[in-house]
Order: sequence, then C-alpha cells, then structure tokens
Amino acid sequence: MATVHRHEPSIYYYTFGPHEPALRLNSGDRVIVPTADAGSWDRNGDQLPPEQRHTLPDTELRYSNPQVGPYYVEEAEVGDILCVRILRVDLNRDWAFSRFNPGFGNLGVEDYPAGPTGLNAPLPQKYFHWELDHANGTATLDLPASTLGSITIPCHPFLGCIGVAPRFGEHINTLSSGNHGGNMDCVETQPGTTVYLPVFVKGAYLQFADVHAAQGDGELCGVALETTAEVEVEVEVCKGGDPIDWPRFEDDEWLMVAGNARPLMDAYRIAHVELIRWLASDYGFDQWEAFQVVSQVGRTRVGNVVDPNYTVVAKFPKRYLP
Amino acid sequence: MATVHRHEPSIYYYTFGPHEPALRLNSGDRVIVPTADAGSWDRNGDQLPPEQRHTLPDTELRYSNPQVGPYYVEEAEVGDILCVRILRVDLNRDWAFSRFNPGFGNLGVEDYPAGPTGLNAPLPQKYFHWELDHANGTATLDLPASTLGSITIPCHPFLGCIGVAPRFGEHINTLSSGNHGGNMDCVETQPGTTVYLPVFVKGAYLQFADVHAAQGDGELCGVALETTAEVEVEVEVCKGGDPIDWPRFEDDEWLMVAGNARPLMDAYRIAHVELIRWLASDYGFDQWEAFQVVSQVGRTRVGNVVDPNYTVVAKFPKRYLP
Amino acid sequence: MATVHRHEPSIYYYTFGPHEPALRLNSGDRVIVPTADAGSWDRNGDQLPPEQRHTLPDTELRYSNPQVGPYYVEEAEVGDILCVRILRVDLNRDWAFSRFNPGFGNLGVEDYPAGPTGLNAPLPQKYFHWELDHANGTATLDLPASTLGSITIPCHPFLGCIGVAPRFGEHINTLSSGNHGGNMDCVETQPGTTVYLPVFVKGAYLQFADVHAAQGDGELCGVALETTAEVEVEVEVCKGGDPIDWPRFEDDEWLMVAGNARPLMDAYRIAHVELIRWLASDYGFDQWEAFQVVSQVGRTRVGNVVDPNYTVVAKFPKRYLP
Amino acid sequence: MATVHRHEPSIYYYTFGPHEPALRLNSGDRVIVPTADAGSWDRNGDQLPPEQRHTLPDTELRYSNPQVGPYYVEEAEVGDILCVRILRVDLNRDWAFSRFNPGFGNLGVEDYPAGPTGLNAPLPQKYFHWELDHANGTATLDLPASTLGSITIPCHPFLGCIGVAPRFGEHINTLSSGNHGGNMDCVETQPGTTVYLPVFVKGAYLQFADVHAAQGDGELCGVALETTAEVEVEVEVCKGGDPIDWPRFEDDEWLMVAGNARPLMDAYRIAHVELIRWLASDYGFDQWEAFQVVSQVGRTRVGNVVDPNYTVVAKFPKRYLP
Repeated sequence: MATVHRHEPSIYYYTFGPHEPALRLNSGDRVIVPTADAGSWDRNGDQLPPEQRHTLPDTELRYSNPQVGPYYVEEAEVGDILCVRILRVDLNRDWAFSRFNPGFGNLGVEDYPAGPTGLNAPLPQKYFHWELDHANGTATLDLPASTLGSITIPCHPFLGCIGVAPRFGEHINTLSSGNHGGNMDCVETQPGTTVYLPVFVKGAYLQFADVHAAQGDGELCGVALETTAEVEVEVEVCKGGDPIDWPRFEDDEWLMVAGNARPLMDAYRIAHVELIRWLASDYGFDQWEAFQVVSQVGRTRVGNVVDPNYTVVAKFPKRYLP
Repeated sequence: MATVHRHEPSIYYYTFGPHEPALRLNSGDRVIVPTADAGSWDRNGDQLPPEQRHTLPDTELRYSNPQVGPYYVEEAEVGDILCVRILRVDLNRDWAFSRFNPGFGNLGVEDYPAGPTGLNAPLPQKYFHWELDHANGTATLDLPASTLGSITIPCHPFLGCIGVAPRFGEHINTLSSGNHGGNMDCVETQPGTTVYLPVFVKGAYLQFADVHAAQGDGELCGVALETTAEVEVEVEVCKGGDPIDWPRFEDDEWLMVAGNARPLMDAYRIAHVELIRWLASDYGFDQWEAFQVVSQVGRTRVGNVVDPNYTVVAKFPKRYLP
Repeated sequence: MATVHRHEPSIYYYTFGPHEPALRLNSGDRVIVPTADAGSWDRNGDQLPPEQRHTLPDTELRYSNPQVGPYYVEEAEVGDILCVRILRVDLNRDWAFSRFNPGFGNLGVEDYPAGPTGLNAPLPQKYFHWELDHANGTATLDLPASTLGSITIPCHPFLGCIGVAPRFGEHINTLSSGNHGGNMDCVETQPGTTVYLPVFVKGAYLQFADVHAAQGDGELCGVALETTAEVEVEVEVCKGGDPIDWPRFEDDEWLMVAGNARPLMDAYRIAHVELIRWLASDYGFDQWEAFQVVSQVGRTRVGNVVDPNYTVVAKFPKRYLP
Repeated sequence: MATVHRHEPSIYYYTFGPHEPALRLNSGDRVIVPTADAGSWDRNGDQLPPEQRHTLPDTELRYSNPQVGPYYVEEAEVGDILCVRILRVDLNRDWAFSRFNPGFGNLGVEDYPAGPTGLNAPLPQKYFHWELDHANGTATLDLPASTLGSITIPCHPFLGCIGVAPRFGEHINTLSSGNHGGNMDCVETQPGTTVYLPVFVKGAYLQFADVHAAQGDGELCGVALETTAEVEVEVEVCKGGDPIDWPRFEDDEWLMVAGNARPLMDAYRIAHVELIRWLASDYGFDQWEAFQVVSQVGRTRVGNVVDPNYTVVAKFPKRYLP
C-alpha cells in the first residue's frame, strides 16, 4: 500500500549520482519534503551548515543547487521509466533572490565551468531581492534605477532541478543537466505535470529541488527567483515499454520532451526527434507524418541557456491525439 | 495625403536588395498586393512564368520565396526606421503545400546553401497537400499512414518574409535573413503587428511575401503551410530616434525583437541584448534592471531553425511598461 | 594565346558580385595587379579616394577589404570550375597594420554585423604597426608593455580574400565568405597554390585582395598583418568535370577544401565531406574508405573564426594518392 | 627518493573520479603500466573480463576507454598543478582497430550520449583492421574497395586520455573531457610532452590510457588506430603558482593549452584565452600584446570533434619567448 513519507533532509547533495539513499520508496509512494534554495539557504534564511552539504574530503564546499534525496525506488530496474507526479510546490518563504554572477548567464562572456570564453571584463555582480506575497501569488522587486520604480509579477512555482542517477556511472553536478534530467530549469516541471525519467541505475535515485517562484524563458541572467518550498511528489515505476532516452513531461494539454545539450541547436534537435519518436511509438503516427504535423503545430520552450547544458522543451498539443 | 496603391506585380525578386522599385510610396501610404507562394505558384496555382522571375543572365532560375516590391519610400533616409503596419493577410487560395526537401530542414543533415554537413543518406522527399477552409479558418491534411487519418488545425496567416535592402550594398537571397529582416518565418509578422526595420539604403526598398497559413515554432521541417494571400500594409518613416540594429515588432501585448543569425545561440543573444537596449532607451529602464526583469518575465519564440540564419524573437510583455 | 594583363584599378569593390568587369580575360591569361590593404590604404599609405570606393548612392562609405576585379573570364559557364594559380604576392610596402576593433574578433563579445551578442563592455581599441623587412622576409612589432620589448616573425604573404560572384544573384560583402570563396583568410592561398572556384554566374567575376604579410591560425583578433602587394595570377577554366560545391586548393603537398560557414562545426563538417567526395570522385577512393583514411591522416587548419562565416580547411596529403 | 612503480592493473575504470587508488605515489615517482585499448581488449587481444571492468551494481557493462589508475599523489593539494611527463608510449601489440560506430563521429547525425540529433538513417557500421609494423613504425590498412589497394602511414603513439578527478565531486565518463582533462585525443600527449593538470581533489587521482598508434586532426570518424602500449610517466607536484583552469601541455617547441567544451567555438575560445593568460602570468607579456602576438603566430590543432566535449589545442612557439 502506498505510503506518504515526510522527509526532513539531514544532508543535501550537489551531484546527481547513486549516493547513499535518503529514503527507500515503493512504486506508488509519496514524499513530502522541504527544499533549500539554489544558494543553500533554507526556508528560514539560514545557510545550510557545512556538515549538511555533501562534499569530498579536502575539496571546495559547494553552494549551488543542493538537492533532496536521493530516493531509492525499490521496483526501478535499468530500462524502466520512473514517473514522478509533481503534486505540490508550496512556497514557504516570503522572499526569493536573484543575481548576476560574473561569468555566468547568457548575455556575457561565459566563465563556466572554468575559464572564460573571452577577454572582456565580466558583467557586474548584482543582487536582487524579490518579496513574495503568498496571498496574491505575486513577487515584487524594487527597481530604484528605473523610472518604473518597482515591478510585481505573478508567481508560478516549479522545480528547477529534477533527475535520477546518470548513465555510465557518472556523478553530474547539480548545475548541469543531461539525459538523466538535472538542472533543466523548465517552468513545466510544476504541479500538475508528470515527469518521466529513464532509469539508468537500479533504484533510480531520484533527486530534486532548486525551486523557482518565477522565471522567464531561458533563465537569461542565469538566476531565477530562487526560493524554498514544501514539495510533494508521487513516484511510480513504469515497466515494459520502450526505454526512453530523455526526460519527458506530460500535463493536461501537452506531451513534452526535454533535450539537454550544447550547443542550443543540439538540444533543439534532440527534443524534437524524441517527441516525434514518442508520437510514432505510442500514438499511431507514421514517423514522417509526425514530423510534418509537429512542424506545423509544435511549440518550443527554452528552459535555460545558461548551464553547461542548455534545455529545450519540444511540445505537442494533446488535443490532436487520437 | 496618404494613398492606397493596388499593386499587381509584374516581376518577383529572389534577393533583398536595391532593385528597380516596383512602386514609389510616401510615408503614410498603403499597398494592397497579391503574393505568390514560396514555390513560385500564384493564387491560381500557376507557376510564375520565367520572365516574371528576376534572375541574372545565364544563371539558375529561382523558385523559392519570390517577393513583391521593392517599394521605395521617398522619405526614408539611412538611419531612419521604416514602420510597416500589417493590416491584412487574406488567404486567397484554398490549398497550401508543405514538403520535405532533402538536405533542408533541421532534423537532418543539412545541405544548404551547398554541400552537406554529413555523410548520411538524406531524408526522403515528401509532399503534403493541406486543404484550407476559409469559412472556418482551418487547414486539413490527410495522414494515410497514421491511425489518426487526418488532422485539422486553425490557420493564423502571416508573412514569412519581410525586409529592406541590406547594409553594405549586399543583395541577400530570400531564403536567408539578417538585420535587414528577410526570411524570418515569425508567426508574429501577422495582421495587428507593426514591423520596425532599419533603413540602410535611401528609399528603404521594402519587400515581403512568403505567406504561411500556419506554422509551428521553428518551422521544423523547413516548409510551413505555403500559400498565397492579398496583403495590405501601411508604411511610415520614423525619424529622429536612435537607429535600430535589428527588426523589431510590436502588437497590443508585446515588444519584440528578432535576432537573425547562426548559431541559434547568437540569434538568441542578439535578440535579447537588443530588447534590453530598447527597454533602456525608450522606456526608462536601467540596463541592468532591464536585464533582471527580462530574465524573469521575458518570453522567447523561435521563428525558424532552417534558413542559413536562424531567427529568435525575444518578447517583453507591455503590461509591465510604465 | 595567353595574355598578361597589367591592371591598375580605378575602382575597388566591397562586395563579391557580378559588377561591371574591370577586365575581360581568356582562359590562360594572367593578371598583374597592385592591391590596397584591408583598411583601404594603398601601397603609398594613402587612403583610397571616395570615388574609387564603390558604394551605393546615399549609403555608408566602405573601408574594409577593397577588392580588385571583377575579372570576367570569357569561357566560364555556370557549372564550370575556375582555376586560379597564385603566382606572386610580392609585398610592396614596408609596413603592415593590425588592430583590435571593439566588437570584432573571436575573444570578445561579438558585434558584427550589427548589435552585440552580450552586455559586456567591448574590448579596447588598439592599433599595432608592424615594420616589414623585405630583404629578410620578416615583420617586427614593438611590444612596449611586455618584457619582450619587440618581436620579429617571418612573413608568408597570402591573399586574405579570393572569390567569384555568388550563387542566387547575391552580392556578398567582402568581410564575409561562402561557397563563392570570399574573405577566407587562409594562409594556403599563397604563391604556389591553385585555387578552384565554382562558377555560379557566366564569366565567373573573379575578385581578390586583402593581402596579409603574416597571420596565425584563426586570425584570432580579427586583423592580420594588413598590407599591400603586387599580385600575379593565372586563370584557367576547367570544363566537363563534376561541379564543385566549395572552394578547393591544391599545392605540391596537399589537396584542400575550404568550408565557410557558421557555426565553426559546420565549416568543419562541410570541408571534410567535400574532401571525402573529392577523393571518391577523382582519386578512386571508396567513400567509406576515404572517410577512414582522412580520419587517420587528414589535417585541419582554421582560416578564421572572425568573419560572419568561419573558415576551416580540410587537408589530405598527396603522397598517399595513387 | 623517487621510485619507479611497475603496475599491472587489476581493475580498469570508465569514469574519471576519486576511485579507490591503484597506487599511492610521491612527487617525482614514475609509473610503468600496460594499457588496454579503447574497446577493452588487452595487449593479447583478449577482452578484459567483467570483474576487471569497474561498474555500478545492476547497470550496463562498459567497454569504451578503460583507464589505468587512479594514482593518488601524496603531495597534491587542491589548487596545485600536477605535472605528468610522458616518457614512453611503447606499442606492444601488432594491430590496431578503427571503426565507424553509427551515431558516433562528426560526419553524421550524432547519437551520443543518447538519442540522435536527426532523423537520417545512421552511417553504416564498419570495422577496420590496421597492421602495425614496429620495426618501421608504420601502420597498414587494406582498402579493398579503393583503387589504392592499401595504405601505409607512420605511427605516432600517444595517450588519447589523461586526466585527474574532476571538480565539484563529479565522476565523468571516459568518453568525455573537461577541465580535468579526459578523452582529449590530442596527438600532443605523446613522449616528450609534459602535461599540466589542475588538482581539484586532494591526491589528484591521475588516470590515463586509450593509446592511439596514429590519428588525424579531429579524430573525424570518432575512432583512431586503437591499440595497447606500455606507458611510462613521471609525476611531479608543482606548488605555489597560480592555479590553472585547463590542461596545459609543453614540449621542446610549444606552449599549449587544451580547451574541452561544446560547441567547438567555445573550446577554441577557452584554449586561446588560457594561453594568453599563461603568457601574461609567466612570460612577461602584457595581455593585449599577447593577444596581438598570438593572433599572428599562434597555431591551433583540433584534438577531436567527436566526444560530448570537443578539444582544441592553442599553441604558442617557444622560440618567441624571452
């Protein structure tokens, strides 16, 4: 029988990988868990203490994108699909931060993961404090240098990161992404969406966090409205179908595939090829007819153009499905 | 006083450039003109005769993206902005074609403008005939190889190409795009949108056509629902402002900039830098605050990932403007 | 009978295109011509007067990469190959300049052809004056800010630009490149090399110039040792073979293909695919065996990573040919 | 006192990471070790048994690029530089293999790490058997489908992979590369070259292998002349200098930096920025003068355009150093 697990993390991870599981779940179980923000501040605004931040001995202490989990799912075998239903992303702090990190973000010379791609002086470092109004579901930022004075925008909370242990025995840092998922920064990974992830390692080792209160397409400056939430997800293992190569999402309106790669064009291509394959394998489409139809009714959304790997989401409207 | 010109083209151009003007307009004038489709078929389904297709002596006859114009605008001086209000794109044929051209389109080894980027066998050549129902504003395609049988989608007619004579004395073919506009394949260049184009050559030399009845993001297979229309536009020359570097669009909801470049990431960056500059120069934004706000509320739409240059549209919601 | 034409240009072009021919040649003829440098300074250090710089009425005066020609070659028909033997590039000025142009060059945020790809402050503008010693074949630059004091390097004069009228009726500016050739900045286009160019327009319309006294791989900062020379070339029209898609070069040691495209990877792919096709069509190679052999003995040289289109040269050692 | 360790591996790794050390070395020590080839065949042509191939429980068995090591270097602290002198790469098998792997390599639609970037049929799978003649230092391949019959080329043995444990606690698979080094496929990592690697984890955790008997620039088809060797290296820890961001190489003629990234242009930029910084920090160059000089005398070599990350080597001739 399905269990609801309330999990209070004692350690946060900065890589996706087959770490010591935080919990062992069965297919059908739910987890309720509070997340820390992308800068390792918790819901109270306190920095996570070093002993809660997983690291190797004698190396740098990590700050960016601490993840909850990993959750080991008993039934998950290599080749299965892990379905994660995002039930709630309830913001639980009344502020979010954003910032420019010199050398990070897509409108400047990049400096990630190490060493810049140009000789220009980096962009200035700036910090932005957004106030969150949970009653109205809005976020407000003062803009002292603009005539506007301030701006108030709607919140749409979502998980910036969600993924499983990668293929090939890799441990991949939580600023990056790949076919295991990871830091995709997709507004689509929000309540109401089911995320399908390929199982590469027995147990799947689900991790997630990096809650954003709001974000524009592409996460242009590299940092969204970074905050904390209580998150509830339900996991289910799907067996017997074709293995999937890339994360897929589904909500009431759309079938979606996330391609995580560099350059941006490869992410674009990967997402659309996998979407066409999905239509062909599961929905009775001839491959070439699917290609034609996606060309005319497909939508594309750019998750981020910031991380080591960029994320493009290819979307097909479910109203056209048989 | 503004004049409405009914123009029946006697010659169609396959490059953007300062060709012999078809008409000379004054700022404020309107043009009503029928377009041929991207394959040089007219509203009656007849191929344009060779003498109506502009070409050089002793070179290849062109087929793709014949343009109407150029329209010489008397007041347009170098450094001005040409504003083109798209008033009507009235479809006037009851079918559209789409197709796969081997070596063209973004899910295969590319073969454009010459010579492939890989050794794979090219994708198959296929032709798709869409029936247009003007009463219902829909398009229908038979899908004999899919269980779906057929698909019916809404039409949203727009201009695939619109541009002026390029900088530097270039003549640029109508499959490509640049800061002069060109084959951008943006669904946003539709009735209700004003297109702002930089004037690089005295007279501006406006050209447009390549009507699409519908298209998905990115024009994935390289060919949309290609058809013909009667188009009505109004031109106005804006003087005295800062020159613009790239095409801009505006409708009731959005400020938009089109970046036309390769790779896709450069188009992405160019469009967003120019959008931030626009907010700073015309709407009282501090540049860095504009960067932050665009990062959180900006939207991005991919026009095409097919032409020699790709097109990304960066969009800012006007409801946040002062 | 072959004629040697001494040509003293009265007008210089800033686009490759089917302009009014400067001379009409027969296959087998030679041309001897002095070139101006990339900044429109002549062998005497004088700026070319405006009336010698071709431009459109009422648009910007051009400075970069003035070309000699076009030379109309009587026998050249569409589909033929124009062979250009570079016989001499004799430097005739005792200095060269280099510089950093803000927004140009590949180690900074780019700003070409219009509008930057980032928000960074541009690189500083700097001018470098190289003294040329023709007796020793060297160039010397003072380096006042470095402990080195100065540097002396060997000269290896070559044509930065060489090309014909482009396909599709385009006029392409002389900072760019394509399958017509153009601003490839290949050190290989030097005395001793034969350049094979596709004929896209009857008469071919050969143009060249942009002499460099020396240059590193990739022309990193965007400007080489820009100077002037007396150039001698011999043209010959080759008929009856397969048309070529991209410029090819040949010297005593190498078969070479230049791919001109963006992104860099596409230039890389294009050059190598065309090289493999050349080995298959002319030298008895099976395509897949050619692919294997090129993978193991091929060399690659990057012409430039600066222009709107980048240039990669794929090279095959002739000693392995049958 | 320096020790020479003869190491016969009992386990091979398929990720770069801080695995259980095979040996603990002191700065100044040497290691002599036999390597297996990229397909996990050993010097006798036997497949490595499963128990010698490191893997996670219940996941795929790995085949590609088994590494020797990791070698823990006692003195190596985070921020130090590990210098690895490659003393010998003595081929010890009389054959090498190459192949085309469908979906891998740079002249086809790519299919790595998962899911293709296009809908084309993949390239054919082909295997190539090269005979190695150690007396003459050559390799010979039969070319039955070409008129050539066969080809014999010189061998130049080198290490395709060399690296340390990555930053951020990552474990990175041995088909990829990064600022830790990895599968760079640089012909420069050969006897006579010193490789400088950044120490990211205490002990450094040096790994290497993937010996190639020969390879063209870029490793076009994705597979070189894959074989085995007895390798001898000497390690030394350099302290007190500026930390380095990327692998550097040095031989008698060149200072070199490897940039490992996607797209190719980023690898290009990264390598050249780091080379300019090296000239500025260690050789008395002003940064902008270094940029100018590298632009005119720098050489570039493409290691590979195949892996998830591509490798570009930027080279500066030591004869111009003070």
